[in-house]
Amino acid sequence: MTETLHTVADWQAAYAAGASPYILLTDLLARLEPTDAAWIHRCTPEQLVAQLAALPPRGPATPLWGVPLAVKDNIDVAGMPTTAACPAFAHQPEHSATCVQRLQVAGAVVIGKTNLDQFATGLVGTRSPYGEVPNSFAPEYVSGGSSSGSASAVARGLVPLALGTDTAGSGRVPAGFNHLVGLKPTPGSVPMRSVLPACRTLDVVSVFALTVADAALAFSLFEGAQGDEARFHVAAPRPPWLGGARAALRLGVPREPGCNAALGWPAAFEAAQDRARALGAELVELDFEPLFEVAKLLYEGPWVAERLSVVDTLLAAEPEAFDPTVARVITQGGNHDAVAAFRGRYKLESLRAELQSLWQQVDALLVPTAPTCPTRAAVAAEPVLRNSELGRYTNFVNLLGWSALALPCQLPDDKSPLPFGVTLIAPGGAEAALVDFGLRWEAAGPASLGARLREARPADRHVQALPRAEPTLLLAVVGAHLQGLPLHGQLQERGARLQVRTQTAPRYRLHALPGTVPPKPGLARAPEGEAGHAIEVEVYELPVASVGSLLALIPPPLGLGNLELADGRWVKGFICEGAALQGAPDISHHGGWRAFLAAP
Amino acid sequence: MTETLHTVADWQAAYAAGASPYILLTDLLARLEPTDAAWIHRCTPEQLVAQLAALPPRGPATPLWGVPLAVKDNIDVAGMPTTAACPAFAHQPEHSATCVQRLQVAGAVVIGKTNLDQFATGLVGTRSPYGEVPNSFAPEYVSGGSSSGSASAVARGLVPLALGTDTAGSGRVPAGFNHLVGLKPTPGSVPMRSVLPACRTLDVVSVFALTVADAALAFSLFEGAQGDEARFHVAAPRPPWLGGARAALRLGVPREPGCNAALGWPAAFEAAQDRARALGAELVELDFEPLFEVAKLLYEGPWVAERLSVVDTLLAAEPEAFDPTVARVITQGGNHDAVAAFRGRYKLESLRAELQSLWQQVDALLVPTAPTCPTRAAVAAEPVLRNSELGRYTNFVNLLGWSALALPCQLPDDKSPLPFGVTLIAPGGAEAALVDFGLRWEAAGPASLGARLREARPADRHVQALPRAEPTLLLAVVGAHLQGLPLHGQLQERGARLQVRTQTAPRYRLHALPGTVPPKPGLARAPEGEAGHAIEVEVYELPVASVGSLLALIPPPLGLGNLELADGRWVKGFICEGAALQGAPDISHHGGWRAFLAAP
Repeated sequence: MTETLHTVADWQAAYAAGASPYILLTDLLARLEPTDAAWIHRCTPEQLVAQLAALPPRGPATPLWGVPLAVKDNIDVAGMPTTAACPAFAHQPEHSATCVQRLQVAGAVVIGKTNLDQFATGLVGTRSPYGEVPNSFAPEYVSGGSSSGSASAVARGLVPLALGTDTAGSGRVPAGFNHLVGLKPTPGSVPMRSVLPACRTLDVVSVFALTVADAALAFSLFEGAQGDEARFHVAAPRPPWLGGARAALRLGVPREPGCNAALGWPAAFEAAQDRARALGAELVELDFEPLFEVAKLLYEGPWVAERLSVVDTLLAAEPEAFDPTVARVITQGGNHDAVAAFRGRYKLESLRAELQSLWQQVDALLVPTAPTCPTRAAVAAEPVLRNSELGRYTNFVNLLGWSALALPCQLPDDKSPLPFGVTLIAPGGAEAALVDFGLRWEAAGPASLGARLREARPADRHVQALPRAEPTLLLAVVGAHLQGLPLHGQLQERGARLQVRTQTAPRYRLHALPGTVPPKPGLARAPEGEAGHAIEVEVYELPVASVGSLLALIPPPLGLGNLELADGRWVKGFICEGAALQGAPDISHHGGWRAFLAAP
Repeated sequence: MTETLHTVADWQAAYAAGASPYILLTDLLARLEPTDAAWIHRCTPEQLVAQLAALPPRGPATPLWGVPLAVKDNIDVAGMPTTAACPAFAHQPEHSATCVQRLQVAGAVVIGKTNLDQFATGLVGTRSPYGEVPNSFAPEYVSGGSSSGSASAVARGLVPLALGTDTAGSGRVPAGFNHLVGLKPTPGSVPMRSVLPACRTLDVVSVFALTVADAALAFSLFEGAQGDEARFHVAAPRPPWLGGARAALRLGVPREPGCNAALGWPAAFEAAQDRARALGAELVELDFEPLFEVAKLLYEGPWVAERLSVVDTLLAAEPEAFDPTVARVITQGGNHDAVAAFRGRYKLESLRAELQSLWQQVDALLVPTAPTCPTRAAVAAEPVLRNSELGRYTNFVNLLGWSALALPCQLPDDKSPLPFGVTLIAPGGAEAALVDFGLRWEAAGPASLGARLREARPADRHVQALPRAEPTLLLAVVGAHLQGLPLHGQLQERGARLQVRTQTAPRYRLHALPGTVPPKPGLARAPEGEAGHAIEVEVYELPVASVGSLLALIPPPLGLGNLELADGRWVKGFICEGAALQGAPDISHHGGWRAFLAAP
């Protein structure tokens, strides 16, 4: 039966129909092959029973009730060993990581710990004594890493959700190689307690899912760093959309994408750009060199010392316990002194300051998730070089404190053995906006989920929860703030977004206020029982924090209050003091300020 | 003639009376003694002529027109050498530091570069081959450092303003020892271009002045980091006051101040606390151990490697060019590797996260600027130990990204040979609030300026400009938001501050709105020519960014618009749609909502 359960919606439907989590999850665990390199630890029957005994009651607060979750094995799950893909490092944690706890509180059941490039050091998925995780479409190719097992388990439909971690691309590259959604939050936006660090100043927990809706749901349940936890990036939430009220969404694309032609990816990235244009985006070619300069700091600079700080004792005592490539990489952390560490930070902050202007040019970046994907044999032959090629569009993101969403784009075909994925990169705090774009992206492309599990259905695209965003409110404007009229710029400069052009409920009167400059109307609700009109309004969504500065610009007799729309909704909107309406001509019969202005 | 010019107001008055900057400043330069250890470089006649030739026209944009400025010699001034108190390091900068440029654009004339603890490494003012700067009250004591010359020049009335730098207290300790105001801004809030770093992630340019008004003016002219400059702390501006609408300002004081009894400072700090209480503050005794733990990182942790990164080449090539104590301190920067550097940062960010809760307990900290002041002989005997005692209440501040204002408190008397100063410490971005408090502090204490130059006059306390603060607006409330009424908490939780209890202009009518819960009135302006009433209102100042979330809570028929007050001012305030007033009893004769509620 569980063959048919793929997305969170599938699992919810099964439980709504009365299925037993014990039966479904026992069945699922039975189907996990002992030879499947995606897993380092599979939930034991005892661990399953213990988790089910602790399951909260099914209800609105438990959208993941009984939903199986895979957890990358550098994230602690109480009762299961944590190895970070290094048996000598294995230990039995007492507490689950906070992000895992939060998903368990929402009903998720951890069915296993997944394989990874040892100590999350790698983008390939082959650096593990627990085996190489093959690509879920073409096993001679790599799965991508370091969150290889998590991605593989989701792509093959074993779990609808898996947690990864992302320092340099580990939550994105495997999503790209396995036709998945990979949501990589802003560093600092999620709790990191009991997550084994790679580079502690850069790491963030990420989520793999088959759909944007599922990734958004999972992230919405575990986001929010704890107040008493060290944070190395702090980004305020942004509005739940990219760009403002101005014309088109602007996406920056690399002038020289450098996609591997042998895989057919140049054409695939062209097609991705066409899809973005079809969604109304304007593409802006950018020189990515400044971003690549940031990326260079990650492996050539002192940040590798962060990796060493995690394992220095073990590495000194048992170097043979390490994957040789991982050991080689991490050992380089000892080559830097504190002066170099500070100089690296100076350089990063200088580059970050210069790159702020990027977000005046574009609203987000659209890049190939990775420009190429090697075979496992190629990685074995040149493990460091092949690995480093994969981080071209991922390495710089966490250093800069940005957010990203990897999206599936194109399935394998006769020209390419592998799927192709793109990533949308946005400033820190833009998770909700990324999800907003991702949902539209998904709806505009092929609907096949993961490694050709099945076609997406409407239920899979029903968004159950969105990440936190800067709070907004809806504001109806009726006069000089309408599009094209003199005060519209006051909305634009506050990043407002037009939600709908509509009318008020037929209970209002519009008056032309004499002597106002620029000319303004006053909207007044008709007294109870008296006739009113439906008046043209535009409803804008704008950040709550920007409302005060708008109010500051509003002269008497106008103000901001509440308006009833034609559909019965009440939104905030422009109102007018009653005393000013005496002697102000009633122009309601025009139906709106714009029509009045146009009238002869 | 220039003997009588002390504060900026003095200089402005002299120029307003027609004085010539050439004559005044030539005279001033002639009075700088060649043996005065405060100066490393005195402006030459040629440099003076060049600066005066470049002087912008006198006017409202040049409040410092012709005002002499001293600049610490680790801050570049074009045309003058920069030595950082190390002759071997001397070089001739092409450009002035941005902060200097900004003051010059406002009319300031740099009359010299001031002595400092070499490479800004020290809090004593004795670590310089250019001589020890004596305390301006009792020359056997230290001046404090590292900005020793800047403080001494201001305290002795040579200049009204001097720039310092502050990493561990260099902009505060010398202010305390010389009865000065020392404004130490939030790290990251001022341009640092062409300022020689000490610890680049912590440094900030500071200002010494005789009065809070002068410090505020200078800071308001140079604040604001440049967008393309690396920043290591970013704090949003805060409202221009400390605390919110709740009862008293809460100031945290150290449970064990540890003030030197031989100097009479325990009693002095008691008196300071009394003065704060007299200003309406509630004092809260705090355990400062967590702050001292932060401070320990500065010299025991890897941050000293930042100092080494500035001078490592010179230190390797010419160790004898260094002050022996400074060399000893800086050399320790080589003892840390990159792993230690990152571990230091982890520790700092953990402590910072824990300390966030401090600002729920108190609005600011009130501390002795330094707990003791040694003689120059004592420092010579134990240069490192005596120095480290001075940073007890300063060392932790920049690591945490906070702001501080050193204030003169008590002049020497028969029990103490030295003045005593306190420092108010607040979160980052609180400069305007610190100035607000500092002005009240100043008005409540002795009026002697600097090293007994003269008594302060009203003109000295006239504030010409305030630092940037979070924008606020004034909002008049008339009903359930009044103090003690059910919705007042909506103002409190937004950090509103009561500005005044007053009445509207006598042009309004107050109606009791039927059926509202909690009961609410509607205020309406009387139609032109009809009789109105003056209605009781409370006017609150609240952050503009919080107005939107207040509006979101306001139900129809109420809204936010504009109200005319009894004094003729218009402020934002609650208005009511006209249609709702029909059938709502006119209760204007009560004079206000509170009186109506109290009526039998």
